[in-house]
Amino acid sequence: MPAQKSQEIRLKSRPAGMPGPENFELAETTVPAPGAGEVQVRNIFMSVDPYMRGRMVDRKSYTPPFRIGEALSGGAIGQVVEAGPGAPFAVGDYVSNFNGWREWFVSKGGDLEKINPSLAPVQAFLGTFGMPGLTAYAGLLRVGALKEGERVFVSAAAGAVGTVVCQIAKNKGCYVVGSAGSDDKCDWLRTEARVDATINYKTCGNLMEAVGKAFPQGIDVYFENVGGAHLEAALAHMRPHGRIAVCGMIEQYNATELPPGPRTMIAVVPNRLRIEGFIVSDHGDLMGDFLRDMSAWAKEGRLKWHETIYEGIARAPEAFMGLFKGANFGKMLVRLAPDRVV
Amino acid sequence: MPAQKSQEIRLKSRPAGMPGPENFELAETTVPAPGAGEVQVRNIFMSVDPYMRGRMVDRKSYTPPFRIGEALSGGAIGQVVEAGPGAPFAVGDYVSNFNGWREWFVSKGGDLEKINPSLAPVQAFLGTFGMPGLTAYAGLLRVGALKEGERVFVSAAAGAVGTVVCQIAKNKGCYVVGSAGSDDKCDWLRTEARVDATINYKTCGNLMEAVGKAFPQGIDVYFENVGGAHLEAALAHMRPHGRIAVCGMIEQYNATELPPGPRTMIAVVPNRLRIEGFIVSDHGDLMGDFLRDMSAWAKEGRLKWHETIYEGIARAPEAFMGLFKGANFGKMLVRLAPDRVV
Repeated sequence: MPAQKSQEIRLKSRPAGMPGPENFELAETTVPAPGAGEVQVRNIFMSVDPYMRGRMVDRKSYTPPFRIGEALSGGAIGQVVEAGPGAPFAVGDYVSNFNGWREWFVSKGGDLEKINPSLAPVQAFLGTFGMPGLTAYAGLLRVGALKEGERVFVSAAAGAVGTVVCQIAKNKGCYVVGSAGSDDKCDWLRTEARVDATINYKTCGNLMEAVGKAFPQGIDVYFENVGGAHLEAALAHMRPHGRIAVCGMIEQYNATELPPGPRTMIAVVPNRLRIEGFIVSDHGDLMGDFLRDMSAWAKEGRLKWHETIYEGIARAPEAFMGLFKGANFGKMLVRLAPDRVV
Repeated sequence: MPAQKSQEIRLKSRPAGMPGPENFELAETTVPAPGAGEVQVRNIFMSVDPYMRGRMVDRKSYTPPFRIGEALSGGAIGQVVEAGPGAPFAVGDYVSNFNGWREWFVSKGGDLEKINPSLAPVQAFLGTFGMPGLTAYAGLLRVGALKEGERVFVSAAAGAVGTVVCQIAKNKGCYVVGSAGSDDKCDWLRTEARVDATINYKTCGNLMEAVGKAFPQGIDVYFENVGGAHLEAALAHMRPHGRIAVCGMIEQYNATELPPGPRTMIAVVPNRLRIEGFIVSDHGDLMGDFLRDMSAWAKEGRLKWHETIYEGIARAPEAFMGLFKGANFGKMLVRLAPDRVV
């Protein structure tokens, strides 16, 4: 197959506050045919994730900032369409890659990982069986040091990470309460993810009281995705020796000034609490255990997931911006091509 | 020796906000002669500590609340004045006890610990060689997991705990910066405690900037005694995998409403920070190591301490209240009797 026209989304300008359409631009490039040792890949699904907001800011962090005028990048799943001589993958292979926000690319394969499409629909490797799933697994079990039967609170519980956290905790025999921003999400969490109770933080009135009511005996592990009032309420209701695994604080990623901090920090002393931030890339050594456990739970019907899919690369900025408005129910994805492209 | 008149300080009312003289009352009781198996003890020094403020509030915590109309309690050092038949201590023994805020008491000895006055002046067992010293040792080495050569920030550095934290860190080859509220305290920290730099938080202007300037390469371990702006500034300057050992937050013990939280909490995620609260009583197993190390350092001239001593039990409330105004330079003590009482 020859060179391919490929659309991609570039960062046009750095957002101040909530990103808008003006920060992105759709462009077309030509992706060459693969040379020796190379594969040409067509992406089928790309992921949008909250952490990408941090990369839109020009500052040093654990991942380098995106550059103005260049295509964004991120997790994607594609299929090998053409393989040059001696290429490390075969035509038809489904490959997980970090060349999202574009339709086509050529690679020598070092940044690709072949996935097993018999395990789950390919896009699940961007969610429950991918980075968000491993984030949940490592954050809850290693950072949060979850023990069977403990009491677990999960914010953004209906998100890509939260849905997995809730179900791992349930599978470990825990009492689990999830917070989400719509009744639909809360219903799904109770019926499909089997959580014991939910809090719709948009309609519950006083979140501090709602958390207290949901945890009359307190919280052992709080899985933090949100920040702000959620963290303040969780801190106030932690049990002695409780742990807070901090995955992110989506509420403040678009803040233009320092947001208020949790006024209940002092609780860490009398209750000997541990608050610990983590990044999934530090926990790649758990991948084997993760895939083993997740496959087993999925087969037993004890692991479900939900997806919100936007169609076409042109809608990728909208999908991304939707993350900060709770537009995603489970994993937010953008479909770039049909399930099979060869 | 017969029964003794003993003065004691009782909690008259629970303070709202900063405690005042009206919350305390001086009373006189009679302490009987010791019976069989009992000792009669005269306290020489008593300790006032910030944590006592928490016990003046009527709420469940890791120590039960003080009761209105009863003598307060806390650490003290006394000498056995009379011993009944079969008593577990001898006349003249110096005993560490938890019957502070009173001059005399009788005990069966189960709550007393004999101290070795050849190791240090007896009152040091209420400070550097006592609970505050062990707090520093456990908090820095176990909770903070300090490694040789790291960069350490200490707030309330001229306090009973902070002075020890600074010197342990120096003895471990660390770069140490202490924050204190007067130039005298800062001078002592640099010349006697050998810290590398100090911040007078009352005169430095912008604490955030002062901390940044003192730690161009960031902070590995922050020993938190203060809360508020100190925690916010430390969080903003932590190095990857940094630890914050939270001993207390004296700035807010008298707050009548929830104080602002640290607006820089998000730093825990990119830097994988750990914030952990602790209570010294969980770390009593370190006492042997603690006394061994502290004695060695003291003999080598690498452990100094400073005391602020108020004279007479009537001034105990004033000493206690002074803790919240920085009136103490090093350990705050109240002298109840001469060094030797038998």
